Amino acid sequence: MQRKYNFGAGPATLPQAVMEQVQNELLDWQGKGISVMELGHRTSEFNELILTPALNELKALMSIPDNYKILFITSGASAQFSMVPLNLLQNKTQADYLYTGIWSHKAMAEAKRYCQVNIALNAEANGFTAIPPSSEMTFSADAAYVHYTPNETINGSEFHWIPETNKVPLVADMSSNILSRSVDVSRYGIIYAGAQKNIGPAGLTIAIVRDDLIGKALPVTPTLYNYKTYADNNSLYNTPATFSIYMAGLVFKWLRSQGGVAAMAEINQRKANKLYQLIDASAGFYSNNIDKSCRSRMNVVFKLPNDNLQQLFLKESAAAGLLYLKGHKAVGGIRASIYNAMTEKGVDALVEFMKDFMKGNG
Amino acid sequence: MQRKYNFGAGPATLPQAVMEQVQNELLDWQGKGISVMELGHRTSEFNELILTPALNELKALMSIPDNYKILFITSGASAQFSMVPLNLLQNKTQADYLYTGIWSHKAMAEAKRYCQVNIALNAEANGFTAIPPSSEMTFSADAAYVHYTPNETINGSEFHWIPETNKVPLVADMSSNILSRSVDVSRYGIIYAGAQKNIGPAGLTIAIVRDDLIGKALPVTPTLYNYKTYADNNSLYNTPATFSIYMAGLVFKWLRSQGGVAAMAEINQRKANKLYQLIDASAGFYSNNIDKSCRSRMNVVFKLPNDNLQQLFLKESAAAGLLYLKGHKAVGGIRASIYNAMTEKGVDALVEFMKDFMKGNG
Repeated sequence: MQRKYNFGAGPATLPQAVMEQVQNELLDWQGKGISVMELGHRTSEFNELILTPALNELKALMSIPDNYKILFITSGASAQFSMVPLNLLQNKTQADYLYTGIWSHKAMAEAKRYCQVNIALNAEANGFTAIPPSSEMTFSADAAYVHYTPNETINGSEFHWIPETNKVPLVADMSSNILSRSVDVSRYGIIYAGAQKNIGPAGLTIAIVRDDLIGKALPVTPTLYNYKTYADNNSLYNTPATFSIYMAGLVFKWLRSQGGVAAMAEINQRKANKLYQLIDASAGFYSNNIDKSCRSRMNVVFKLPNDNLQQLFLKESAAAGLLYLKGHKAVGGIRASIYNAMTEKGVDALVEFMKDFMKGNG
Repeated sequence: MQRKYNFGAGPATLPQAVMEQVQNELLDWQGKGISVMELGHRTSEFNELILTPALNELKALMSIPDNYKILFITSGASAQFSMVPLNLLQNKTQADYLYTGIWSHKAMAEAKRYCQVNIALNAEANGFTAIPPSSEMTFSADAAYVHYTPNETINGSEFHWIPETNKVPLVADMSSNILSRSVDVSRYGIIYAGAQKNIGPAGLTIAIVRDDLIGKALPVTPTLYNYKTYADNNSLYNTPATFSIYMAGLVFKWLRSQGGVAAMAEINQRKANKLYQLIDASAGFYSNNIDKSCRSRMNVVFKLPNDNLQQLFLKESAAAGLLYLKGHKAVGGIRASIYNAMTEKGVDALVEFMKDFMKGNG
């Protein structure tokens, strides 16, 4: 068996060591004679050996303060686009959104179902090639919260600063960069992330919610869209995505074994630098149009001189065992997603391939 | 590795052959050098080798007519308790519910958030030990739909008839008995089921929805609670629970290899008969309080003469490799969940154990 390098944006590559453990114990978990997938969520084993350790590991990894709840929600992160307004609006009618790319736009579109959406920062004018400076943020007088997307997976941009919102709850969709570097959780009202990029299998969302924001959902909120339902029941109101929580716990443990989030941040920065340096030194053969101040460390997007070369690049890279490098159809080009589980060796292999490809076709 | 017999109510035991295949190809799916868990949902491989085959297998297994859509929804079935009223009420203000146990009660409680809930059949007076006859059903003049729970997992009762609702859409929560026998799908407006009992890992719900019921959701409905979102996008509006869909597809294929739903129905009936016959012949040592006309073929509940014997039964059965037989805390006692993936051999082992236990303690 030859594992290949998978640069897909998500569901994305997972740590090899975790995958091997999952495979080894898939039919007989902890010597219990059943699969972890077949374990009831109300058993003491699930609570003591899976749920509680996963919560504790994440809390330690991100230094989550005691006044935050960690919620395991069975859904994609897109569900949060509705859950955030439903839970945070209370008696307000407006929310502020930082509009920096396709994913922040999706969040805004859904919020409009429930409130007036104000654009507090707008990257539309620059074609989403740059995140405007914090000085350009203009907040509403009465916004219930401020929402932003710290990493735009499709556009390839990333915030390298945290918006200061003057006590208005800050909500972040960290689906594509959670656990990729240290963040000061206390700056946030809510951090949420779909699992399928940096955490585990698709179908699980993690929400880290400050206590005072829980319990004030609008009356129309479905029970499973109410953060309180999860907070009051330790994410066990109904059957959760048990296997995904198990895998998330293994990934958290693996992260700790790698030195934690700070160590991953260094590796991630090195990985991204290698690609951007090659792109910038390619005399235009490879081009990335994102302002250098806000290039994504997670999703490196670039183009080649023409479509034929791009097609050839995709074909030959796949043949070389470098998979799923095709950019999102909304922006085209190439995209290398290099989340925590993409090894530096994988990035080195891509860099070598890109050098060779340029030599052969430049 | 000694696999044990897992009688847990859900997440429940899965077919051994499926689990072995999943384990074998977990690190290298279809020779592609990546795990199926790491495969992007927008790839042609996911569509052609996972999603489409899973849909086709289920359609064939259940003989689903062409005017129904099969939706893969990332959530537990409890989300349907809100989705059903949000999607079906339209301009109506009432819905009818058949109240036959704890799960139908949960569905009713959530629906009350959105409409007036009328009880069209009520088993409360008999302590949920019997499903009253169809002649006792009293429907409202203007109900948007009729909801029922064909199998009450906790109480241990099951409908062996389909309610006739005179053109009002019939909605069934088949979480615990889908695919356990043939049903005439055309009698239903919606059939939904959480995956974790008869289909695959927890975190996935399958909804089979008649076309004319799609596209009429109330304006407050979150996008991911709208059936139309799934119907219009082949369940790919956002990242679905890809691994769970893959496993569901394998389970469907396995079911076909076993002779399909009709063959499973025979086996399931035999399995249930063996347990009920032993219980009924035990001169009260084992007792099941459900009326014989509506005993569940999926969840066989019974009690022993006293609590001490019950504790001993649980301890000794676990030691004998018969796991998770403890009844739900709401009703106590013992519960043997014997969905499709519980083999007849497993039930035989339980029967033998029960005979021996009675001999030793009767």
